[in-house]
Amino acid sequence: MRLSTIIGFIIGISVIFLSIYLRNPDMLDYFVNLPSIIIVGGGTTAAILINFSFRQILSGLKAFRYTLVGSVMDPEGVINLIVEMAVKARKEGFMSIRELSTAGKYPLLDIGVDLVADGTDPGVTRGILETVSDYLQMKIGADERIWRDIGVYAPLYGMVGTLIGLIMLLKTLDDPASIAPNMSVALMATFSGILLAGLVCMPVAGKIRVYNTNMALAREIIIEGVASIQAGDNSQIVREKLRAYLAGRQ
Amino acid sequence: MRLSTIIGFIIGISVIFLSIYLRNPDMLDYFVNLPSIIIVGGGTTAAILINFSFRQILSGLKAFRYTLVGSVMDPEGVINLIVEMAVKARKEGFMSIRELSTAGKYPLLDIGVDLVADGTDPGVTRGILETVSDYLQMKIGADERIWRDIGVYAPLYGMVGTLIGLIMLLKTLDDPASIAPNMSVALMATFSGILLAGLVCMPVAGKIRVYNTNMALAREIIIEGVASIQAGDNSQIVREKLRAYLAGRQ
Amino acid sequence: MRLSTIIGFIIGISVIFLSIYLRNPDMLDYFVNLPSIIIVGGGTTAAILINFSFRQILSGLKAFRYTLVGSVMDPEGVINLIVEMAVKARKEGFMSIRELSTAGKYPLLDIGVDLVADGTDPGVTRGILETVSDYLQMKIGADERIWRDIGVYAPLYGMVGTLIGLIMLLKTLDDPASIAPNMSVALMATFSGILLAGLVCMPVAGKIRVYNTNMALAREIIIEGVASIQAGDNSQIVREKLRAYLAGRQ
Amino acid sequence: MRLSTIIGFIIGISVIFLSIYLRNPDMLDYFVNLPSIIIVGGGTTAAILINFSFRQILSGLKAFRYTLVGSVMDPEGVINLIVEMAVKARKEGFMSIRELSTAGKYPLLDIGVDLVADGTDPGVTRGILETVSDYLQMKIGADERIWRDIGVYAPLYGMVGTLIGLIMLLKTLDDPASIAPNMSVALMATFSGILLAGLVCMPVAGKIRVYNTNMALAREIIIEGVASIQAGDNSQIVREKLRAYLAGRQ
Amino acid sequence: MRLSTIIGFIIGISVIFLSIYLRNPDMLDYFVNLPSIIIVGGGTTAAILINFSFRQILSGLKAFRYTLVGSVMDPEGVINLIVEMAVKARKEGFMSIRELSTAGKYPLLDIGVDLVADGTDPGVTRGILETVSDYLQMKIGADERIWRDIGVYAPLYGMVGTLIGLIMLLKTLDDPASIAPNMSVALMATFSGILLAGLVCMPVAGKIRVYNTNMALAREIIIEGVASIQAGDNSQIVREKLRAYLAGRQ
Repeated sequence: MRLSTIIGFIIGISVIFLSIYLRNPDMLDYFVNLPSIIIVGGGTTAAILINFSFRQILSGLKAFRYTLVGSVMDPEGVINLIVEMAVKARKEGFMSIRELSTAGKYPLLDIGVDLVADGTDPGVTRGILETVSDYLQMKIGADERIWRDIGVYAPLYGMVGTLIGLIMLLKTLDDPASIAPNMSVALMATFSGILLAGLVCMPVAGKIRVYNTNMALAREIIIEGVASIQAGDNSQIVREKLRAYLAGRQ
Repeated sequence: MRLSTIIGFIIGISVIFLSIYLRNPDMLDYFVNLPSIIIVGGGTTAAILINFSFRQILSGLKAFRYTLVGSVMDPEGVINLIVEMAVKARKEGFMSIRELSTAGKYPLLDIGVDLVADGTDPGVTRGILETVSDYLQMKIGADERIWRDIGVYAPLYGMVGTLIGLIMLLKTLDDPASIAPNMSVALMATFSGILLAGLVCMPVAGKIRVYNTNMALAREIIIEGVASIQAGDNSQIVREKLRAYLAGRQ
Repeated sequence: MRLSTIIGFIIGISVIFLSIYLRNPDMLDYFVNLPSIIIVGGGTTAAILINFSFRQILSGLKAFRYTLVGSVMDPEGVINLIVEMAVKARKEGFMSIRELSTAGKYPLLDIGVDLVADGTDPGVTRGILETVSDYLQMKIGADERIWRDIGVYAPLYGMVGTLIGLIMLLKTLDDPASIAPNMSVALMATFSGILLAGLVCMPVAGKIRVYNTNMALAREIIIEGVASIQAGDNSQIVREKLRAYLAGRQ
Repeated sequence: MRLSTIIGFIIGISVIFLSIYLRNPDMLDYFVNLPSIIIVGGGTTAAILINFSFRQILSGLKAFRYTLVGSVMDPEGVINLIVEMAVKARKEGFMSIRELSTAGKYPLLDIGVDLVADGTDPGVTRGILETVSDYLQMKIGADERIWRDIGVYAPLYGMVGTLIGLIMLLKTLDDPASIAPNMSVALMATFSGILLAGLVCMPVAGKIRVYNTNMALAREIIIEGVASIQAGDNSQIVREKLRAYLAGRQ
Repeated sequence: MRLSTIIGFIIGISVIFLSIYLRNPDMLDYFVNLPSIIIVGGGTTAAILINFSFRQILSGLKAFRYTLVGSVMDPEGVINLIVEMAVKARKEGFMSIRELSTAGKYPLLDIGVDLVADGTDPGVTRGILETVSDYLQMKIGADERIWRDIGVYAPLYGMVGTLIGLIMLLKTLDDPASIAPNMSVALMATFSGILLAGLVCMPVAGKIRVYNTNMALAREIIIEGVASIQAGDNSQIVREKLRAYLAGRQ
């Protein structure tokens, strides 16, 4: 996912740059318009601050890193590891699989391994793993939502900026020649707001969503695998149960 | 959450103020436009009064206080308390945990403690606690909805105001020089409506939603904890079950 | 809810009246524009007739009365009555609670009382009461939907009316001086459509929804209460089970 | 539902006709604009062909007949028939109810009667009837969706038509006097698209939805009734179970 | 579905072509506007790259082939085959049905046949088949979503392109005669964006959805059939169970 994010930003910025440059190379700096940036950036910041807590905003902004993750997980590898655990558990008992712990590479699997090795009841084990998975998904969903909401407030404050410009322009109309350039400036806020939403917020929110979905799939495989280990399924059934999830792999 | 709400409002108002001031310091008072305030404020008030009951509107407006709550709860503290209760219940019986009641700090936990101490059936206990939790969430959801609806009606009445201005302006067109200033005034209603929605209603509704989600998480921990106490789980299982919810902590 | 509906309509109409009157007292009658009323009223009527059956439209329009209901129910009173029934049933048998029938004040409770007194199986009893409750909620939901749909068609036909006016105006442009007044008339249809949606349809649909939600809550209390009577719960448990629903009271 | 559909179309067409005629009787034929019909009709046809298969489109268009159905079913009659079956089944055995088959009037009831008479397991019977009912509902839901989608594409191609007209008009601007009439023609496409959506597609989709909901309710009564016959319920319980569904009757 | 897709594209392109040609044959090439293509195509590409991973984008674009599939499956044939399997399984044992494997024509059925022949537990078998089916549906749903998202970004970048044109035009207004043609060019971006969405993205996404729904129906029949074989149902029950799904056939 990393490369596509970076190439996407490069293409997006180049296309906007080119669209302006090809028509009139002298107007590139005209499009970096301070008042538009103040109203769109400031207004959106204000709305987001009222809408969320600092902790959430920080968490949301940091979620940008999910768009730069190379690849979410190696499902084949996880399945092989779980099958190996199932075999070991049948041969040497549940205690033994702790040796195959991934030491933090797949945190949910490690939690599951610990619970299995401790002899926790299968229902309780699945309950704990599903709770962790559901709430993790909700958390990243909340991170995504912050980007979606920035993508809603940015065009809204773009419109506010354009309205302010238009209202002032129409009120203080003394020189007809100044109408068009002033209207041009007023439209800049709408332009900035839409661009911020369409090039940054919406796509970033979208990729966080992709990351979240992929991670949830990975966790479902792990939860099913741990349950399968506890049920004492033979390795072939474990593998078939888990490979069923790969039908949805992207 | 308190600080972010207050800072948000300060930034939002400053940005609008600055956007106007920087272009034309003399026009600040022009943007406080009585007819716009009448149509947007009055129309929205009317729609909200028809849409809800007085009791709900009052409850909704008072829900603004949720945006000023410092921090929703201390999950670690709650978990430690519930673990302590579980240990005490195993040692000294269910009756004993009444001593650990939070005396109103966590009302749902207190209800649960009472039910457990009274020897209520676990199914009934969970049923009662979940009913309280679900309906509390619905209630705050209804409070949020009032703000969302104000945020829908405000721009709508902004448009109504602008349309009234435009229709009158076009009808009584005798002096062409008056068109632009009159159109400027007409646009003010749209500006007020959008600003009310984008700076107040939508973000406030959003933060009430955040509060509601966080509170629901806290209540889920309590419900699971009370069930765990009644099931006689050992302290380690109780802690693991409850800490699983913290994966979604924000 | 009655008072808020009436006050809402008074404020809404006054605000529109004032907004026009303050700017130009002579133009009040200008805003009562027959062609706009024909296209918005007639078009919306046509669409609603195609969209629903006569029976539904009648039921939907009559649902307006729900916005004028003083107060939906007295939950404390219902809970006290059910607790009384539970006590009586434990003492004197299920047959005896028929004496406490509400004689139509709470129809669902009366159905429940009859079923309990007839010795109907608890599962069947709950099934029948839930079916009645679910379908009643669906019915009032359909009533609400008619108002929502009027609120969608009205602005749409407002736009159709404005487009017809605009198309004719642009085609038959001989006297430039007539453009503005004709455009003014054309905009009237949009104004009427939006006002009909924003002042009548959307808020009325909203209050029908509020009524429906409150009634559903009341019925949930009754269903839970009847189940509790059949289960032979003691009065304290019945009361605690039912009071749990009041957490969502508005 | 038949009459309301027909009256709706008559009112709708009359209102549009009148709106044009009253302002300028000479312009009625002007509103039948071939290029608009080509772009809106052709573009929408193209999009619908790409979006669905021939079979679905045919099925969707034929679903228009549901808007002309007089009345969906006679619930009281169905309930009486099922009660009669239940009585007969208790007296003369399941085989005997085949005599009461409706011979195609209520196909789902006939399927149920056959299954009961064949001595099919109650779980399997309910499973088969629910599958038939669910997929029938999905099918009519897909028919409805085609009308909804036409109602989305029509205004979109109206906009495309208006944009084409506007772009050509602005490019080839030599005679200022031709601007207004050309703009008038350009707007015709938007007018046609919105009218097609608002007078035909959306209301027809709406009535198909009403038909679908009513039919689903009828089928739920039949499924519950067949289950009740198999369970050997006495006639009073059967009637009470089934009449519970009529709470949602419209 | 193949033919309708191809005919749809031919009609769509012809209609746009004709709409332009009939008004002014000389302006056909004017509508192939490079800057518009750069901003709409480039901007949309950028947003999609940021929003999804390369793997998903490739998978999504390749999903276009689903719009060219002749017919999804022959449900009668599948049902007959499964009934034949059920008969064989009852006569010759589960091992024997492996001979009736479809060798890849219906992959899910083959997986089911293998599981049944291996004597897998019915619950596990259904679990595996449902997991495969659910995740396959999610995957094609994700493919559909890419087309939906292109259909959102294209008009958005059309608006960005038009705004850039408008802003530059209004700023560098020296020759009033150049306003109209420049505005014409600016509108071209909006035109391209809407056309890309309305003629390609939305209908293609729609047909992928149709394909996905039909395939899911086919898989439900297979899953139910395999369960029926394992349950040892007689051939008549199997056929009745499976034919129930055809009520939803389109």
